[in-house]
Amino acid sequence: MLIVLKKSATESQVAEITRRIRDAGLTPGLVPGARRSAITVTGNTGVAVVPDISELPGVLRIIPVTKPYRLATLEGTEGEHSEWQIGDARVGSTTGWFVAGPCSVDDPDRLLETAHFLKSIGAQALRGGAFKPRTNPYAFQGHGEQGLKWLAEARDETGLPIVTEAMDAQQLELVEQYADVIQLGARNMQNYSLLKRVGQSRLPVLLKRGLTATLDEFLNAAEYILAEGNERVILCERGIRTFGEHCRFTLDVAAIPVLKSLTHLPVIADPSHPAGTRSLDEPLARAALAAGADGLIVEVHPEPRHALSDAQQALRFADIEILAQRARGIASVMDRSFGAAT
Amino acid sequence: MLIVLKKSATESQVAEITRRIRDAGLTPGLVPGARRSAITVTGNTGVAVVPDISELPGVLRIIPVTKPYRLATLEGTEGEHSEWQIGDARVGSTTGWFVAGPCSVDDPDRLLETAHFLKSIGAQALRGGAFKPRTNPYAFQGHGEQGLKWLAEARDETGLPIVTEAMDAQQLELVEQYADVIQLGARNMQNYSLLKRVGQSRLPVLLKRGLTATLDEFLNAAEYILAEGNERVILCERGIRTFGEHCRFTLDVAAIPVLKSLTHLPVIADPSHPAGTRSLDEPLARAALAAGADGLIVEVHPEPRHALSDAQQALRFADIEILAQRARGIASVMDRSFGAAT
Amino acid sequence: MLIVLKKSATESQVAEITRRIRDAGLTPGLVPGARRSAITVTGNTGVAVVPDISELPGVLRIIPVTKPYRLATLEGTEGEHSEWQIGDARVGSTTGWFVAGPCSVDDPDRLLETAHFLKSIGAQALRGGAFKPRTNPYAFQGHGEQGLKWLAEARDETGLPIVTEAMDAQQLELVEQYADVIQLGARNMQNYSLLKRVGQSRLPVLLKRGLTATLDEFLNAAEYILAEGNERVILCERGIRTFGEHCRFTLDVAAIPVLKSLTHLPVIADPSHPAGTRSLDEPLARAALAAGADGLIVEVHPEPRHALSDAQQALRFADIEILAQRARGIASVMDRSFGAAT
Amino acid sequence: MLIVLKKSATESQVAEITRRIRDAGLTPGLVPGARRSAITVTGNTGVAVVPDISELPGVLRIIPVTKPYRLATLEGTEGEHSEWQIGDARVGSTTGWFVAGPCSVDDPDRLLETAHFLKSIGAQALRGGAFKPRTNPYAFQGHGEQGLKWLAEARDETGLPIVTEAMDAQQLELVEQYADVIQLGARNMQNYSLLKRVGQSRLPVLLKRGLTATLDEFLNAAEYILAEGNERVILCERGIRTFGEHCRFTLDVAAIPVLKSLTHLPVIADPSHPAGTRSLDEPLARAALAAGADGLIVEVHPEPRHALSDAQQALRFADIEILAQRARGIASVMDRSFGAAT
Repeated sequence: MLIVLKKSATESQVAEITRRIRDAGLTPGLVPGARRSAITVTGNTGVAVVPDISELPGVLRIIPVTKPYRLATLEGTEGEHSEWQIGDARVGSTTGWFVAGPCSVDDPDRLLETAHFLKSIGAQALRGGAFKPRTNPYAFQGHGEQGLKWLAEARDETGLPIVTEAMDAQQLELVEQYADVIQLGARNMQNYSLLKRVGQSRLPVLLKRGLTATLDEFLNAAEYILAEGNERVILCERGIRTFGEHCRFTLDVAAIPVLKSLTHLPVIADPSHPAGTRSLDEPLARAALAAGADGLIVEVHPEPRHALSDAQQALRFADIEILAQRARGIASVMDRSFGAAT
Repeated sequence: MLIVLKKSATESQVAEITRRIRDAGLTPGLVPGARRSAITVTGNTGVAVVPDISELPGVLRIIPVTKPYRLATLEGTEGEHSEWQIGDARVGSTTGWFVAGPCSVDDPDRLLETAHFLKSIGAQALRGGAFKPRTNPYAFQGHGEQGLKWLAEARDETGLPIVTEAMDAQQLELVEQYADVIQLGARNMQNYSLLKRVGQSRLPVLLKRGLTATLDEFLNAAEYILAEGNERVILCERGIRTFGEHCRFTLDVAAIPVLKSLTHLPVIADPSHPAGTRSLDEPLARAALAAGADGLIVEVHPEPRHALSDAQQALRFADIEILAQRARGIASVMDRSFGAAT
Repeated sequence: MLIVLKKSATESQVAEITRRIRDAGLTPGLVPGARRSAITVTGNTGVAVVPDISELPGVLRIIPVTKPYRLATLEGTEGEHSEWQIGDARVGSTTGWFVAGPCSVDDPDRLLETAHFLKSIGAQALRGGAFKPRTNPYAFQGHGEQGLKWLAEARDETGLPIVTEAMDAQQLELVEQYADVIQLGARNMQNYSLLKRVGQSRLPVLLKRGLTATLDEFLNAAEYILAEGNERVILCERGIRTFGEHCRFTLDVAAIPVLKSLTHLPVIADPSHPAGTRSLDEPLARAALAAGADGLIVEVHPEPRHALSDAQQALRFADIEILAQRARGIASVMDRSFGAAT
Repeated sequence: MLIVLKKSATESQVAEITRRIRDAGLTPGLVPGARRSAITVTGNTGVAVVPDISELPGVLRIIPVTKPYRLATLEGTEGEHSEWQIGDARVGSTTGWFVAGPCSVDDPDRLLETAHFLKSIGAQALRGGAFKPRTNPYAFQGHGEQGLKWLAEARDETGLPIVTEAMDAQQLELVEQYADVIQLGARNMQNYSLLKRVGQSRLPVLLKRGLTATLDEFLNAAEYILAEGNERVILCERGIRTFGEHCRFTLDVAAIPVLKSLTHLPVIADPSHPAGTRSLDEPLARAALAAGADGLIVEVHPEPRHALSDAQQALRFADIEILAQRARGIASVMDRSFGAAT
């Protein structure tokens, strides 16, 4: 059960609502929110009855929800999906969000060149890793704060908002100083401490699906962020681990329309990580958009040979230009558009 | 190694080539073919040298192949993909093949109605099961030969070729009398006896990928058919089994472009079985086409409630009309078309 | 619902029972059986009521079953598991069944040597492939009938019953002439035509779990055999396909106790195929027995280097002697024994 | 390449070795260690030659390693496995480590009762969660520091060392004050920041395998800890995610012997989480030991009905007594023992 509060609800009204919930043997959870403040009710909700609660001052309405992810669920939204403003883009709208950039930030000049090029073909945000999660401890771990500074410079020059990853609370302090969107990687999808911490951030969050996460687990991970009051979560399908050997991960295109039927949050796709090889990037990008994705986040590099990570899967400038063009074509088939006008 | 024979090669020339291969300690395998007859050479091919074989009369050329599926491989074809004529359609060409029909054939009137409707929206073949593979032995197993007769009648009325499944040699005898394309189901992808038997058929074969088949296993299964002399094989991606619970199978869209890079055979997709629910059929169909599929095979039923199997996943007439329209849109983005002109 | 018939039931009594079921709008299925003849009732069994049927002459008792695999289920058996006599062994009893032999039969002398050795260490049946399912059509496919003859000679010399695979109806004709137990391979687990055919055989059947089969699908596959009247089915866990790369297949030890809780049929394990490498055979064999397997089927070869298939995973004589010894130890921990007394 | 230092190596000697590595264009990494200090050499190690390095004072020996996890690998150890002293137990020795306790700590009296009982049947450490990773943000998250205090009291009363989980740096501060072994959960296996942080702890670490981790990823995760100087890592197989529905996770018993062949670190198993239901705990525990596990970590609860989490899978006292007895039996088959003498 979710109790949506009026904007005008006072502290004492909230205290009274909370007391009533406790009296009924249930646990209230306050969710502060710019868009809608609410109180989640946890406990034996199957038979939950809090007498007369809908009559209390401060209560806008009661939403009975069956899903454990009360705030992420599409239930009670009359099927309306959320849209988040990020830079000039409206993520979750009929215009697909176009994010691109290098896997890791390794050279300020190349980054700037890339950003300018991406801007020219309609990209709406610049991705790039300053802190890189690496399987092996001795592998290149990213340029850290220096990388963040290079990204911020690229934003200042091009106007493209920055999407970059943080892997712990300490990195997050830095990322929040420079970035526009915090990325949480697949391996951290169930890092509950980090989820709670980004839930307290003022920045929107791009949450990647774990390699083996069910959609229920994915939406519960998003709920950790929402429950702390940060409602601007964007989900990202990036491939799951299966027995398949012909690509790095199996892009689960069905997850895209199913997620859209379960949650009001925007759902985008990352075709680069499942592809693992450049020639698959574009087919997977097309497939994800055709399945209904609200956007794409793609790896690109002016000289993939020189990339310090994921060199095999980064697109060259000419490749991504074609990709963007076809993405527009596919979007238009579904009465949508893709990226900024160019 | 593959020795392609001249059309004019005589029996005694073939005998001589074969003798030379045996003399070199290797095993020859004659592959009769309408398009190209060939001899496969098996054994320790790593160091295989058959002296002067390219000089022998009857030999057109020698193709060194690295893949165990010598006939299915794209190697030695100069990247040219095969096209099979089926009815009015050219499967594997830039026109996507449009196959649709009920999961199982259960009523001749409804079947005819369906066939006429499909024809009107550009379908190029009619699918329908007369023999149904069912998990449980007590479930409806199909109408058998009666079902085949109904299918043949629908073809005679509409001109749509018939695609239908056979599960053993005995059923195949019947299917060959009525059908235009033999379908081999996912659970029979490694039924080697059946693969060999359809390899001797005069009909083209639609081979579905097994639930857990690697692409290597899939192409080797096709090779079983090709090695018997039936070259008209069409591959079909239909979803794999993973941990995912949100759809029946996980449509592996990446398999489509990867297969196209490994084999000259056409590759189509079945969105209905992975979807498992009607609302997913269209997004998955769009995704498969966008990934480069050479066609679609879709389940449709005039009144899905009355379907004797797979009722939840069959599209209604109105649904498939939209699907066909969007499929054309997506195909055109890649300079292709979809289905017959309407 | 399952109607168990009295041994004394006459044909006219059976006809009357059958008629009553049909009158109730349901479908009867006669299951002839040496141990118990029965009639399965299919249809809308949720509300199935056949009036007064338990009063009819010839009816022993009515077993309400909730599982679609009515004959394989443990329901209605008072938890009693079935035991099948095969040679001197009682499969499914507290004595674990010990089956071993080469992957494929390739040399009569080595086969005899192997059989004598296995007999000496307590083996109770000899496995060996005359027809081999191979991924690639050009790979060695087995010695066919010659192989069966060699196996039969080994049985005649040692008294060990023969377990060997058939892949189609034609091969089965031959296998039935020579073998004592028909093996159905993992890739044929859902070859429904073959399942029905072995259901009509007089020989017991060793049914291997498919690479991606759920336990429900596995038990339904067994049901296909049982429904044709052949009740002597033995299930075999042999590893499933997962993302894991460190062994050929993932031995699913949990499947063993879960199957034992669902069905009265014996459940054995094949450690060799999941292992894929010799050093893993014994740990997996021990694990399967410790999990409660009713026996083991293991690959062994006097000179693995010379094996024509699966050379890497076959145990040497010294290895299997240790395995047998440890298997006895593990069995005794659970108050069971393993193999024949030596 | 790994350069093992003499115990007597001075700071200036280490500085000289480090300088030489840098001069050769490679990257040195100092690994302080109680048992052996070492310098890892990263870079183009394929052709790495640091002239005369083995002659330098302070160098004990050079170990050429092929694995990216230089410190975790079994290479260069002459096949000798590590043993860690934890309380009275020697983890990794021929005596299997016996760890048990409730999923989450919820009542000090029940915890004490459990600890006393476990001690009496030979347990060597007490597990229990004070901080619980939960899929849903509204689920019970553990009693936090209060739970840690209860655990410490149970240790003080029984002498059993405490194994408990930390999910972030902040929790770790607390856990280090009370616990004897830090547990890292499956969902944190690739939480690289946390891995580095526990690498700086003085406590041994129980690292659980991720739900979808390859063994290579698992060993690289351990390497993150080792590379920071904490060598006392214990690996734990706890089930992977597959298509299987009959248990919560698929216990991958093959991982146990394969890990033992790749690393010198001890490898134990958790049968409770893959089981998901009480009746499977014991079969899986037996299977893991039979496969060669160096110990077991099992969930137990005096009154599972009252457990606040994982109620279905916790063993009752009577159950674990039988488990311990059979575990001893299985261990003895392999000339090992299990738990403390009772």
